[in-house]
Amino acid sequence: MGKKKSSIIKTLGLSPGTVVYIGSKTDSDLYINVLDFNQDFIEEKELNTIEDAFPFIDTDPVSWININGLNNTEAIEKIGSHYQLHPLIIEDIANTHQRPKIEEYEHYIFVALKMLYFDTNENLSVEHISLILGNNYVMSFQETEGDVFDPIRERLRTKKGRIRSMGNDYLLYSLMDAIVDNYFNLIEIMGEKIENLEDSLFDHESNTEITQDIQDLKKEILKIRRAVFPLREVVNHLVKGEHPLLTEKTQLYLRDLYDHIIQTSENIELQREMIWGLMDMYMSTISNKMNEVMKVLTIIATVFIPLTFIAGIYGMNFKYMPELEYPYGYFILLGVMILIFIGMLFYFKRKKWF
Amino acid sequence: MGKKKSSIIKTLGLSPGTVVYIGSKTDSDLYINVLDFNQDFIEEKELNTIEDAFPFIDTDPVSWININGLNNTEAIEKIGSHYQLHPLIIEDIANTHQRPKIEEYEHYIFVALKMLYFDTNENLSVEHISLILGNNYVMSFQETEGDVFDPIRERLRTKKGRIRSMGNDYLLYSLMDAIVDNYFNLIEIMGEKIENLEDSLFDHESNTEITQDIQDLKKEILKIRRAVFPLREVVNHLVKGEHPLLTEKTQLYLRDLYDHIIQTSENIELQREMIWGLMDMYMSTISNKMNEVMKVLTIIATVFIPLTFIAGIYGMNFKYMPELEYPYGYFILLGVMILIFIGMLFYFKRKKWF
Amino acid sequence: MGKKKSSIIKTLGLSPGTVVYIGSKTDSDLYINVLDFNQDFIEEKELNTIEDAFPFIDTDPVSWININGLNNTEAIEKIGSHYQLHPLIIEDIANTHQRPKIEEYEHYIFVALKMLYFDTNENLSVEHISLILGNNYVMSFQETEGDVFDPIRERLRTKKGRIRSMGNDYLLYSLMDAIVDNYFNLIEIMGEKIENLEDSLFDHESNTEITQDIQDLKKEILKIRRAVFPLREVVNHLVKGEHPLLTEKTQLYLRDLYDHIIQTSENIELQREMIWGLMDMYMSTISNKMNEVMKVLTIIATVFIPLTFIAGIYGMNFKYMPELEYPYGYFILLGVMILIFIGMLFYFKRKKWF
Amino acid sequence: MGKKKSSIIKTLGLSPGTVVYIGSKTDSDLYINVLDFNQDFIEEKELNTIEDAFPFIDTDPVSWININGLNNTEAIEKIGSHYQLHPLIIEDIANTHQRPKIEEYEHYIFVALKMLYFDTNENLSVEHISLILGNNYVMSFQETEGDVFDPIRERLRTKKGRIRSMGNDYLLYSLMDAIVDNYFNLIEIMGEKIENLEDSLFDHESNTEITQDIQDLKKEILKIRRAVFPLREVVNHLVKGEHPLLTEKTQLYLRDLYDHIIQTSENIELQREMIWGLMDMYMSTISNKMNEVMKVLTIIATVFIPLTFIAGIYGMNFKYMPELEYPYGYFILLGVMILIFIGMLFYFKRKKWF
Amino acid sequence: MGKKKSSIIKTLGLSPGTVVYIGSKTDSDLYINVLDFNQDFIEEKELNTIEDAFPFIDTDPVSWININGLNNTEAIEKIGSHYQLHPLIIEDIANTHQRPKIEEYEHYIFVALKMLYFDTNENLSVEHISLILGNNYVMSFQETEGDVFDPIRERLRTKKGRIRSMGNDYLLYSLMDAIVDNYFNLIEIMGEKIENLEDSLFDHESNTEITQDIQDLKKEILKIRRAVFPLREVVNHLVKGEHPLLTEKTQLYLRDLYDHIIQTSENIELQREMIWGLMDMYMSTISNKMNEVMKVLTIIATVFIPLTFIAGIYGMNFKYMPELEYPYGYFILLGVMILIFIGMLFYFKRKKWF
Repeated sequence: MGKKKSSIIKTLGLSPGTVVYIGSKTDSDLYINVLDFNQDFIEEKELNTIEDAFPFIDTDPVSWININGLNNTEAIEKIGSHYQLHPLIIEDIANTHQRPKIEEYEHYIFVALKMLYFDTNENLSVEHISLILGNNYVMSFQETEGDVFDPIRERLRTKKGRIRSMGNDYLLYSLMDAIVDNYFNLIEIMGEKIENLEDSLFDHESNTEITQDIQDLKKEILKIRRAVFPLREVVNHLVKGEHPLLTEKTQLYLRDLYDHIIQTSENIELQREMIWGLMDMYMSTISNKMNEVMKVLTIIATVFIPLTFIAGIYGMNFKYMPELEYPYGYFILLGVMILIFIGMLFYFKRKKWF
Repeated sequence: MGKKKSSIIKTLGLSPGTVVYIGSKTDSDLYINVLDFNQDFIEEKELNTIEDAFPFIDTDPVSWININGLNNTEAIEKIGSHYQLHPLIIEDIANTHQRPKIEEYEHYIFVALKMLYFDTNENLSVEHISLILGNNYVMSFQETEGDVFDPIRERLRTKKGRIRSMGNDYLLYSLMDAIVDNYFNLIEIMGEKIENLEDSLFDHESNTEITQDIQDLKKEILKIRRAVFPLREVVNHLVKGEHPLLTEKTQLYLRDLYDHIIQTSENIELQREMIWGLMDMYMSTISNKMNEVMKVLTIIATVFIPLTFIAGIYGMNFKYMPELEYPYGYFILLGVMILIFIGMLFYFKRKKWF
Repeated sequence: MGKKKSSIIKTLGLSPGTVVYIGSKTDSDLYINVLDFNQDFIEEKELNTIEDAFPFIDTDPVSWININGLNNTEAIEKIGSHYQLHPLIIEDIANTHQRPKIEEYEHYIFVALKMLYFDTNENLSVEHISLILGNNYVMSFQETEGDVFDPIRERLRTKKGRIRSMGNDYLLYSLMDAIVDNYFNLIEIMGEKIENLEDSLFDHESNTEITQDIQDLKKEILKIRRAVFPLREVVNHLVKGEHPLLTEKTQLYLRDLYDHIIQTSENIELQREMIWGLMDMYMSTISNKMNEVMKVLTIIATVFIPLTFIAGIYGMNFKYMPELEYPYGYFILLGVMILIFIGMLFYFKRKKWF
Repeated sequence: MGKKKSSIIKTLGLSPGTVVYIGSKTDSDLYINVLDFNQDFIEEKELNTIEDAFPFIDTDPVSWININGLNNTEAIEKIGSHYQLHPLIIEDIANTHQRPKIEEYEHYIFVALKMLYFDTNENLSVEHISLILGNNYVMSFQETEGDVFDPIRERLRTKKGRIRSMGNDYLLYSLMDAIVDNYFNLIEIMGEKIENLEDSLFDHESNTEITQDIQDLKKEILKIRRAVFPLREVVNHLVKGEHPLLTEKTQLYLRDLYDHIIQTSENIELQREMIWGLMDMYMSTISNKMNEVMKVLTIIATVFIPLTFIAGIYGMNFKYMPELEYPYGYFILLGVMILIFIGMLFYFKRKKWF
Repeated sequence: MGKKKSSIIKTLGLSPGTVVYIGSKTDSDLYINVLDFNQDFIEEKELNTIEDAFPFIDTDPVSWININGLNNTEAIEKIGSHYQLHPLIIEDIANTHQRPKIEEYEHYIFVALKMLYFDTNENLSVEHISLILGNNYVMSFQETEGDVFDPIRERLRTKKGRIRSMGNDYLLYSLMDAIVDNYFNLIEIMGEKIENLEDSLFDHESNTEITQDIQDLKKEILKIRRAVFPLREVVNHLVKGEHPLLTEKTQLYLRDLYDHIIQTSENIELQREMIWGLMDMYMSTISNKMNEVMKVLTIIATVFIPLTFIAGIYGMNFKYMPELEYPYGYFILLGVMILIFIGMLFYFKRKKWF
């Protein structure tokens, strides 16, 4: 907690436009690779210094410049200013708390969004992704290595689909689409988690952590919601947008993307309702169990307390207790007790207590 | 679960516009039939190959081409490209997770919606239906056999109503209307389920699965909601729409259809409120029952514990206990105990405990 | 239930515009009466056949044609087609599940709304009313006899107020106003029901049906809401509407009517909140009562169990138990027990348990 | 209740525009007073008959005509028709159930709003106030004597502030402002009530009426909400309004008034959330207390029941029970019992039960 | 409470535009300091009298006039009227209950907002800040000393960032940005509080104040919400605004500020959901604990009550009880009891009760 806090406080009082990396992956190496392509041609390069990425601003083929390692703020500032990005945009690239948004400038479009995945410990990870659509390039900034873009790289290399022939705005769309497609996967995993938790509610064991588990699920779904919901507005803006960098052909694909985000949002809302319902379910299972416990206690106590009382009566030491003298007194009493016992059980049976 | 998951993941990383069947009915045979009609004429054909459905694109009478078996993606791609549908539309036809939507293109209108029914195991089934309104044809795509269109076929054959004389947009309306009409049926069944569950809350038996039943009802109503609510927007779009394929005469009918969907939506919301209320009701019945149990225990314990104590007193073995020597001590004590017993019962009676 | 279900299913698969009566009052006799009036003149007629109602379409004075008995669908179809109503409108007149709505056609305006009242068994009844405002007539369709229009008839006969001089649109307004005024009455009765239920929560008796009563109130208020809320839009449409049949003078009255509906809606929302709160109140009274029960049990058990133990000690048969031999042992022990008893009571008193 | 009901039913079936007083203060005397003023001049008169109020319609100075006693419907009708108010407006003046609203006519503006105060029994009173802004007059109608306008009268008399120089629209604003200012006072008292109730939740005494108190608070806040919320729209209408009677100078003040109403609304919503939260808090305190009670019972029972059992063992009358013969058997057993006792207490201590 | 109340009532009945300080910091000294700067020049002055602040209205460099001590209403009125602020604005400056708002006048823009911080007792403090953007000055009014503007002063002095070169509208933005940046800090602390409370729910100790703690958190988050949410509208107004005092260059920064406020709002909503969930969690932990307690009681009672009964049987004093005579009767019975004991434990083990 302390670490997270300091990362936020780090920016307090700074001049706006100051580039500060806010995030936990502070030791990622800078990694830059470029895919240069057009219909007929493709070239893939791994760059060593940020300056190597400068020329692509005015080369003719479409260039996809991917930069990993947001903690290397100096490099990001350098390339940002070379590509003439506004200081506030450069700040947003490094600020991992930035919510999904779109900013249109004259020469480029900036899109911030979130890549979501469950890490190896089953914790939800939120990675900040920034995309810049420029004249003939797309730049993508990631916090760290590992992404959902491999299928796109594959399609580019193998010339599968339209991606090689459709220009840089289609590439932007493809990257966003890959991220959004991955949300469905996430929703699927969340669905399984919810079902597992639901099943374990009716399980007789291991109930103590369920409240905590439900609260954790709540937090996860709210995190996902926060990452996905603002994206609707972002893509809607792109769909309607009339920025010259967006071609009409790509609009249809963006509309499809918008549709997918709406669908994800609906699924998230559905799961949210389900998770909120879990608490009520859990409360009712607890109450049911307590009811069971109480019934056992009540049956036992109600059956034996009166019998014990009767035994107590004949354990008294009065001088003159005629029953005690009867030759069959003891057996008669035993009989009476058994009758009471059976009567009680019959009563509870009729009341459906067991 | 595993199967469902893999079906989603199957599409991850694919190029947009790739036609993949996402759904559980993977072994349906391709079944194509065509109804060709105008005011004076009707012809019904069952086709063997998808290519047989190609000519209807430019025949003069209205053609209703119905295709069952979305898992036959190849056939769907073939007919889609012959009828010049956009690749994204073909993808949407096969994608059973696609939410209800409408897409207007220059030469055709695409409508996706959901057919809902309870299957033989009383489980809610959601079937993805796609409708294409073209120049002089309507195409309908279904996941599998069995639909709610038989009355329309009947009306077409017998020339009942306006359907033979009103053109292909009216046919589109009729198909949508048949699906929406069926929602009322569904709502009716849901209503019965809710009432049954409500009744069983006050039943003394079989309570353990009620929490699960309520949760199941919640899921069903949310599923229905997800299928029906987006349809409002779809039909509203059609009502307002000015696509040349929609004639003014049909607008009135579409408005009526819109009305029906609103009504369905209201019923769904009502049922939702009812179902959410069930959990509260259930909790209060559990609490009431526990109250009853506790009262029984308390009455028994409160009546007999003091009496047992008294019996215990006179069971002590002190040398000098004068009461024990009284000739009528035993009978006096029995009298006192009976008085205490009656007093206790009287007290509980006054407190309305039984 | 079965009956209601079949009534819905009855319409499944029918051609749109087919007139089917959906409702439970299937044996009402057809009853038609006409009030013909202008400023100086009034005539009241009871008609025998539907054909007798045909001439009023082009007579000069304002005619109010009231038709009871929606189950006589044939008659309704006849008059509907004579008055040139659209088939969908005629269907809506007979369809008692139709939600409140307004439809403007060139020559007439159609308004559907609901008359609400509590029947003799205190059950909420919803009656479907359809109003047609034509050139110089108003037609009203009711499911069965008995309505809230008597005061209007009286005002017409006695020339009280503006109704005789203001034309047919004012008559339409008056009919709607009478129905809406009656809602206030309904709200009043609902208010009493809620207060009664609230009072009975704190009552010590008859608690078992309260959960059911609350659920019933919920259903009633939701039914009312469903009948009233869409009416806001309907009247708002009339207020803004520029249909030539609506005169400017009547607009003011319609605005007033709109105001009344808003007020009713607010009251409904208020009552809804109150009813939803009842469940919480009920839960807390149950819990309070259980608390009381538990306290009684705990006090009795806590006081007597230790005393019984002590008595048990001296009921043991050990050979050497010196206390038993003391001449005053018994009396000392009784004293000790009384001290413990008083001490326990004092402890619970201080804990405010009684 | 009966009385309130009849007051509503009294209007059922009446012709619209019929002036009926609906309210509980049916015996207020008619009281009319007039304040005539301009920059240099002020005159204050108490009038005896309603006819005395007629001349002010065309006198030159601004006249504030205040009329108390809405139950005197005849007088209200007389002055209303003299001042050429629409019959529906006159009806709204007398109808105390009328929600806050604004109506603009050509020659005057009508504003209805609510004066709220806690009466001497701490009950929330809602008084219906109607204001008419005419050419050079403001008329105010109150149900009964006693209002929040005294400071305005004082400012008028002493020429403090702008009120004497700003015209009749500023007077209207001032009257509304006085009413809205008083809402803050109300909110303050509600706040205290909520805090008191909150404190008493944690009190050990007097819990039985808390549920009722919370429900009462709910009703009060909902009543206040219903009186205040529609006022937002009313004032917003005035702020935007372009009625010639409203001068531009006063707009700024109306905007300020709007701001105050928004602030009141926000406070109301806040208090509403707090009150709704009280029920949850109360439930958790009940549960906590029950937990305490259960712990006491469990500790006592768990400690003494096994001990009593052991004592019971040695109270048996078997011929051959070797322990009974041991010379120190009794003392050994007492020791064992004390050990068990201490062990039990230690166990509960470790479980943090006391 | 009394004090707070009187502070509100103090203003009741006052003429609008009367400057009254409403707040608790009534003894702050008046403190005025001025920062005069342009690109090349900076001068910092502490002023003694309010009149010393008068000349800056028409000096050429940008002047930031900061005034602490809102309780000095006279001084505020003086400077307000010298700078030609509208009386209502001057009232709003002193009224600490004023919600965040923006007012645009011809020659200046007024912005009211809230500075939030946790004071030394961990209580949430809300300080009312007013900002005036005039021709070449920015005035800021604070209730008392201590603010979040020190970094801005530093940047001004050291010429860091753009602040010296961007004019007075950028200064206004910077002040607002500093306040909003501080909100993130607040959210962070709230997050920690929530997590701490969540952890302590599962703690076995110190549960009695948790309900109170949750209610306190609710109040705090609602307070924060009330301070932050209206700010969205304020900044949105600035972003869209076309007041001549706002330059285009600053718009981008304001948009960024807007973004930060949206992000804060989302975080607040998230925390609100979390806090509301805490009560449910707490209830379920209470229920779980009660369940544990009940299980212990039930196990003990169920095991020992039947055994005690059996011992009671053989404690009876009947003359003829054959078992008592058996030489091994006692040992056999002990064996039977041990068997019953083990059987009971086995039963509870199987039921997973411990």
